[in-house]
Parts: sequence; C-alpha cells; structure tokens
Amino acid sequence: MKTTSAAHISEQAKFAARTLRTLTTEQKNTVLKAIAERLSSASDQIIEANSKDLNTAKSQNLSAAMIDRLRLNEERIKSMADSLREVADLNDPVGVQRSLGLQQSGIEVLKKRIPIGVILMIYESRPNVTVEAASLAFKSGNAIILKGGKEAANSNRVLADIIQATLVEFGIDKHAVQSISTSDRSVVSTLLKRDEDIDLVIPRGGTTLIDFVNETSRIPVIQHYQGVCHLYVDKSADLAMALDLLINGKTQRVGVCNALEGLVVHQDIADDFLNVAVQHLRHYGVEIFGCDRTSELSAVDKVLKLNDFGQEYLAKKIAIRVVSSLDEAIDHIDQFGSQHTEVICTEDQQRADQFIQSVDAAVTMHNSSSRFSDGGELGLGAEIGIATTKLHAYGPMGLESLTTEKFVVRGSGQVRA
Amino acid sequence: MKTTSAAHISEQAKFAARTLRTLTTEQKNTVLKAIAERLSSASDQIIEANSKDLNTAKSQNLSAAMIDRLRLNEERIKSMADSLREVADLNDPVGVQRSLGLQQSGIEVLKKRIPIGVILMIYESRPNVTVEAASLAFKSGNAIILKGGKEAANSNRVLADIIQATLVEFGIDKHAVQSISTSDRSVVSTLLKRDEDIDLVIPRGGTTLIDFVNETSRIPVIQHYQGVCHLYVDKSADLAMALDLLINGKTQRVGVCNALEGLVVHQDIADDFLNVAVQHLRHYGVEIFGCDRTSELSAVDKVLKLNDFGQEYLAKKIAIRVVSSLDEAIDHIDQFGSQHTEVICTEDQQRADQFIQSVDAAVTMHNSSSRFSDGGELGLGAEIGIATTKLHAYGPMGLESLTTEKFVVRGSGQVRA
Repeated sequence: MKTTSAAHISEQAKFAARTLRTLTTEQKNTVLKAIAERLSSASDQIIEANSKDLNTAKSQNLSAAMIDRLRLNEERIKSMADSLREVADLNDPVGVQRSLGLQQSGIEVLKKRIPIGVILMIYESRPNVTVEAASLAFKSGNAIILKGGKEAANSNRVLADIIQATLVEFGIDKHAVQSISTSDRSVVSTLLKRDEDIDLVIPRGGTTLIDFVNETSRIPVIQHYQGVCHLYVDKSADLAMALDLLINGKTQRVGVCNALEGLVVHQDIADDFLNVAVQHLRHYGVEIFGCDRTSELSAVDKVLKLNDFGQEYLAKKIAIRVVSSLDEAIDHIDQFGSQHTEVICTEDQQRADQFIQSVDAAVTMHNSSSRFSDGGELGLGAEIGIATTKLHAYGPMGLESLTTEKFVVRGSGQVRA
Repeated sequence: MKTTSAAHISEQAKFAARTLRTLTTEQKNTVLKAIAERLSSASDQIIEANSKDLNTAKSQNLSAAMIDRLRLNEERIKSMADSLREVADLNDPVGVQRSLGLQQSGIEVLKKRIPIGVILMIYESRPNVTVEAASLAFKSGNAIILKGGKEAANSNRVLADIIQATLVEFGIDKHAVQSISTSDRSVVSTLLKRDEDIDLVIPRGGTTLIDFVNETSRIPVIQHYQGVCHLYVDKSADLAMALDLLINGKTQRVGVCNALEGLVVHQDIADDFLNVAVQHLRHYGVEIFGCDRTSELSAVDKVLKLNDFGQEYLAKKIAIRVVSSLDEAIDHIDQFGSQHTEVICTEDQQRADQFIQSVDAAVTMHNSSSRFSDGGELGLGAEIGIATTKLHAYGPMGLESLTTEKFVVRGSGQVRA
C-alpha cells in the first residue's frame, strides 16, 4: 500500500515532467511571479500553519536555533516571494544550444540543454527551502518531489498547496511540485529505488541523512557533504589581508559550510602572523587548536595530533598547522579538506596558480574570503545546493546544474556506410 | 587481505591522480604516442598472450562471436596503436576556462575544467577496450582502474604492462593505469565502496553486470543500459528516404546499441510505406513483428501485444507500430524507448522540431540514420561509453565527459559583509 503510493507519486512526477520540458521561458516566469503574489496574499494562512509547527517544536524542546530556522514571519514570507521573482529574472538554461559542427557524413550535430526530468529533494527543517527548491526546479523545467522535515510539516504543506493552486490556475499539472509530509521512512526508501521515474536525488541535511540516502538510493545522488575549508597563508602573503580573510572566514558566520575550519601557515611568516592572528581570534571568542609548532609560537587551547585535524566544527574553533612549504600545505588540504572551498593568501601569482592547479576542491580561491563560496556570491543567482562530489556538478549548483545536454542531429537522409 | 589489497589499489590510483592533473597537454600526448610505438613493437608478445586466452576460450566452448571479439592480430594491434595517436590529436579539455565575470563584491569568478580524478571501468571480453579506456582517461588527466573480463586476463595483463612501462619511462606514477585480472568478485565489491578514492564507475557489459554495479556501488555510476531505438516515419516523410534510414538502421549492423529495434509509422502513409518496407526488410532476412494495424496492412511473422514492445533484440527482428498522430508516436517512444537514440523522418520542419523537443532521448535525430549515434560520428573523436542516464553525461561520452568544472575565484582581499 505504502509502496504503491510512493510509486504513484514518482509516476505522477514523471508524467508532469513531460509537459514541463515544453514550457517557454515566459510561461515559466509568469507562473513564478504568480506564486510570489499568492504567497504574499496568503501570509496569514502561512503564519498560522507555521505556528502549529512552532508549538510542536517548543513542546518537544527543540533548540532555540532550530526553532529560529523553522520560524516564518511577514519578513521571511516577503523574502520568499522576492526570491521567486529573482528566479524569474534568471536566464533560462533550457534550450541553450552549442554546435558540434557539420560532420564528414553531412549530418549537423548540436548539443541542446534540457531539463533533467524528476528531482527528489530531501531536506531538514527550514521551510523556505520548499519554495526555493520548487522555484529552481520549475524554472529549469523539472518536476520535483519535496520531502521536508517532519518539524515543518504544516508549513511545507501550506506552501506546497499555494504553489500547486497557482500551477492549476495556469493549466499546468500540479504534480510538477509535490510535497510529502509523511514521517514514514519506507516511503522515502521506496522513492529512492524508483530510478525508472526519478533522475536525481539531492539530500540536504546532516551526514546521517546523506549516508542513508547514499546507501539506499539506486538513483544518482548529488551530495553536499561537509565543509572543512582552509585558509593557507603563504610566506609571500600580505599579512594584513590574511588577517582580514581569516577573521571574516572564521567569525562572520560560524555554522555554515563555507566558514573556515582550518588555518595553514607557512613557517617563514608563522612567527609574525600567528601572534597577531591568535590574539584577534581570541578577541572573537575563537578557541585555538594547533599542531606542535603552532603551540611553540603561540598559546593554544589544545595541541592537536595529526589525526585530530579535518573536523567540521561549525563553531568558534579553529585548527592551525604550520608547514614548511607550499607543497606541504597542499598535502595537508588534500588529506584533511572536504573538497569544498580552499583559499590561498599570497602576493606571488605563480604560487597562487600552483595552489589553484593542485588543490582538489570545488572552489579554490586566491586572496578572497571562503564565505564567498555560495551560488549568489559566485554569480549563479541562486543555488539548490553545493556539490562536494564531482560528477555532474562540483561546488554551488545553480539552474544550469538542474539541466543536462542532449545531442540533436539534423540530416537529409544520410546513412552510415 | 583482499579488502586491504583492493583498498591499496584505489589509494594508489588516487595518489597517481594528483600528479596526472598537473601534466601538460604536450606531456600527455608524448606519452600516448610512445605507448603506440611500444604496442606496435611488442605485437609478438601481445599475440602470444592473447593466444593463451583464445585457447582457454576454445576449451570452454565460448561462442564464435565471443572468440572473435577476444582475438588480437597484427591488424587489430595496429588499430589500437592508431587509436592512441588519434587520442593524442584530440583537443585536451583540461584547463579550459569560462568566465562568470566580475561580481559586485569585486571578486572575479571562473569555471575551470579539471579531471574527475579516479575512474573504475568494469568491462567484458574485448581487450582493445583496455587500451582505449586507458588512453582516454590518461588524456583527460584521470587515473583509471581497469577490471576486464577473465576471458581476456592474459591479453589485458600484457597491454597494461606495456602502458605502465611507458609511464615509468616518462617518470609518471605507473598506478595511473592499473589493470586487475582477479576473478574474485569481492575485490570489485570492495572497490565499489571506495568512494573516498574513486570518483566514477563506468560499467560496460550486459544488464546483469550493470545491475550488480548499480546495487553495490557507493560511487556514482554512469551506465550504458540498453539501446531500444526507433525510427518514426511521419505522414510528411520522404518515403524513399525513410526506407534508406530503416534499412541502414536495422541491417547495417544488428548487434549494436544504435541499431533500430522499432519502427513507428503514421497511419496516413502506413499503407504505402509498410508494403515496400516489409518487402525490403524480408530481403535482408529481418523478421517482422507488428501491432494489429500493421498486420492488417502487411504480412507479419508475429502480432505483438502492447506489452511485447520495447525489446532490445540485437538481432534481425523489428517491432512495428502504426500510430494515428505524432503525439501517439512520441507516447510510444516514451513508453518503450530506452532514452538512447530516436529518429524522425519527415519533410515538415515544425513536426521535426516538436519531435526533438518532446522526445526524451540522449540523441534525437531528424532524417539521419540511428547508426550515427556514436562518439566518432558525432564529432567527439572517441568515446568511452554511451550514457543512458542523464546526470553528468547523456549519450556518447567523449573526453569532456571525463572532466568536471571547478570554481576559481581571484580577489584582492575581499571579505563578505
């Protein structure tokens, strides 16, 4: 029974995807703007549904941070509506063509961008993800199945209802956006096996969720695992700049994946830099963990062994390592980074290029704060996630990442000899 | 013990990948041409190793077709050497950049093409795949672990030895190309769990192999499933052209994935077309299976029920369906195609565009033979496989499909406000 209903959900999504891929950009933008209107005028209804979720969360003693993430108010609803209009303003990747030229046989070959098809998104807590993910999927011509956290079940339901009502108003199959609120894991497990209907799974949440999805899914998964990001301060760095990048990367917001978790310092400037850096970090309440050499140069709260590096603290903590060369810095990042975002601070262009060439991370930066590693700041407009695996997408994923390219061949009766 | 050795293989591949991604195009091309030389001068040794495999195959009563696929002779060795030189001539996708522009914050954002890292290729029988796959992986800067069929164990070993000897000659880590000849499935199972080292798995073989890899792997898989390709002959088709496309697609080579397995005919021209088409197909020894309406218009060898459609025959057999509209043709292909290659024959450009827009297949063609659906014919130069799933690659995969893009950010000390 449950299996049937999960299958039904994915079949309906696949059917809806067939019409979605033929919509024009103008049609899609009109619908997105209409959803924005409807959200704004339904804010009382949204806040009421959200308050049920908030009450349950309070009665279950969820943390204040969790409750804050869950909360919707006038301002946050306005911000959701604004984000819908921003997605309408983004370039539509669907239909973009590039030529592979006329072949010797006489056939003309193109690659044409098309929607992926059906996306299953599994996420936790924040209900605004419901609207963001639905709008990005819709703009890129994909059907989406949204499985939000049970904490936000009432909020997600009313948001999905508003989206579906707008779709119906414009004569579009409402199964283009489906929200599942069941807490029954077997429904999710069944969906994760439906590779005949679903083309892509995006889990956004803790490592337990991602591991579960990875283990269970027969469908390709794009995972956003951890952000263990480093700043490497080279011997040729502008130390004042390095300090800015360090403080911004570590303290501007600590609970996010593009915050710094590690600092790697070249030995030649370690003495000069670490004293000042550690003093500033302490001023911001950051606990200092460091290798032996770090501890010889400045007071640390804990000396780290090699095995202790590579933690995603998501807190006011930093792991510092002193290295004797650029190569050793690259080795450290290779071993302990999570292929998310890695920064070099140096005035030496050649050493910057070597770092960028050698470090295997989705975003490699020269003289910039790791906090810029998100879709909006990198010029993608909006992001549906950040991929730390390399296939299909690597790093922040915008609209283009929700599409793929097919081959189009035009001939005049050519056959193969 | 076995687990350790499998882990050791993938760790060594990952280590080799670090240097591979920094090689220049010229360095890579020099090595590829040197492997070609060495292959040619070692042909006696290769033929000797191959004859051991052939003897085993004969003693095990493998089919003549299997034995032919397994066989290496002077001509085939020359063809492998030529293919290495052709790969050297292909454009190197690694390092290609595109700009996302200067952002409001002042940072400059680029996307830069990089190797994926480590590829695990699992394939059956044909030993020339060993050389092809190794050369494409190497040219695109990836390490590769080759798991060929046990039938070709001796041939694969000598080919891999030649490749590794050349790598060593040029001071490159020989673990860039590793061939595993064990028939122990637990080694493969362990490798399929090593997502910390391996970035991509490409299985090439029967559905049993692909299903096993899909079920077992924690690593992203690009699968080449089936080719159930159709030719749709529209009411506005040039029927002489349609006949050419049909005969070429069905009979030029029957055992390949881009051969036609289905013919869909618009009712308005079905009477005219089917008589001639069936007559020609019979002349080539093709068995005719058809729907009720087909059987009313021409003699069929078997009447098909709806459930019987969608077979990959890989033989001189074809399934014919008469439809009453373009939409019905698209529905048929949606239901029974395998998202590989679909062809429309029509003189009506609008109907061709609608077909191309609506049909969900990696390669959609207008007035061309399905047999053009391969990397060489489509202008990719060489292919490592044909993806029938949409993520990362869809359709024939050339060098570019073995790479991904990372973000490169260049700033001058910008921090996030």
